[in-house]
Amino acid sequence: MRYPQHLLKLIHQLKKLPGVGGKSAERFAFQLLEWPETQLTDMADVIRDIPHKLRSCDECGCLIGEEECYFCHESRKAAKTLCVISSSKDAYAIEQTREYCGLYHVLGGLLSPLKGIDPDKLRFNPLLQRIKTLEIEELVIALDATLEGDATALYLKKALEPYPLSVSRLAFGIPMGSSFEYVDGGTLARALIGRSRF
Amino acid sequence: MRYPQHLLKLIHQLKKLPGVGGKSAERFAFQLLEWPETQLTDMADVIRDIPHKLRSCDECGCLIGEEECYFCHESRKAAKTLCVISSSKDAYAIEQTREYCGLYHVLGGLLSPLKGIDPDKLRFNPLLQRIKTLEIEELVIALDATLEGDATALYLKKALEPYPLSVSRLAFGIPMGSSFEYVDGGTLARALIGRSRF
Repeated sequence: MRYPQHLLKLIHQLKKLPGVGGKSAERFAFQLLEWPETQLTDMADVIRDIPHKLRSCDECGCLIGEEECYFCHESRKAAKTLCVISSSKDAYAIEQTREYCGLYHVLGGLLSPLKGIDPDKLRFNPLLQRIKTLEIEELVIALDATLEGDATALYLKKALEPYPLSVSRLAFGIPMGSSFEYVDGGTLARALIGRSRF
Repeated sequence: MRYPQHLLKLIHQLKKLPGVGGKSAERFAFQLLEWPETQLTDMADVIRDIPHKLRSCDECGCLIGEEECYFCHESRKAAKTLCVISSSKDAYAIEQTREYCGLYHVLGGLLSPLKGIDPDKLRFNPLLQRIKTLEIEELVIALDATLEGDATALYLKKALEPYPLSVSRLAFGIPMGSSFEYVDGGTLARALIGRSRF
């Protein structure tokens, strides 16, 4: 007893979404079967149009639609600050904090010898180019607090040594709202090292 | 700061999947942005083709592709048994048990006055028709153990009183592999009522 061929195909496609296993894909698929044809066409159209309606800004690598890049606006250049992020999604999270008003630079990933991602695969050279052209004075490294994030941050620090700019990295510490009891040892150690006058 | 228009559209579509909230939809959307165009087209095609490649069997209401209905095969008619299920998905779960080899009948939902689902909206009349035509002798009610499942089962029982057939419902009890400690009171009560000689 097997599902009809097209249902298998549908489940196979849905399983490619992040964190979606066989059971969830089946649940999604059976739900889609209930949708009216117009709704299915709408969804198919939106997915098909992704490459035509969304692209990366040639300058900063952030996501843009058909309008000009929001993150490359002239007013941001005055700050002479550049924030290095791994994916375009991160820019939105940082914007929401309202604590940053400089430019962004999307690396397009993190260094990972295991996955075969070396510096050539990331947007390092355009970064160096932009630092010169835009006369950047501060570079903020906003990368994951993981092994790969650390490796990339260190690589960046080293590569930027010849440049006359200050390099900072986001602080590590206790997440807001979390109680001591649930904070792991590594985080606590970094929070101690990074303690500041109160 | 807002996402580009098309990304918002994509997130809006993905949020319609069952159990997918804003955060998951965003995660799915940003993942889709990384896919190559051919893969996106494949996914869009599969979704768009659902209504053309999958439909309900006119007879039993189960899901069929382009071939004949697996669940209406001639060999199943000899058992004179009909299993009533709410959705076509349930037939696959029952088939997997290998404990049933009769016919199926998909109601297309469960009675729910709150959601405005009354008997006219479900496939009750075709059910009565099939019971007569196929000379069904046993009807197995395989519906959810919820309020709506109970209501539908009771309605069925009443509607079938004039017919010369035995009506059964799936047993309620302790799920296999679960320890006593985690079984709720209602289930335990039903398990006691339905106890059998050991």
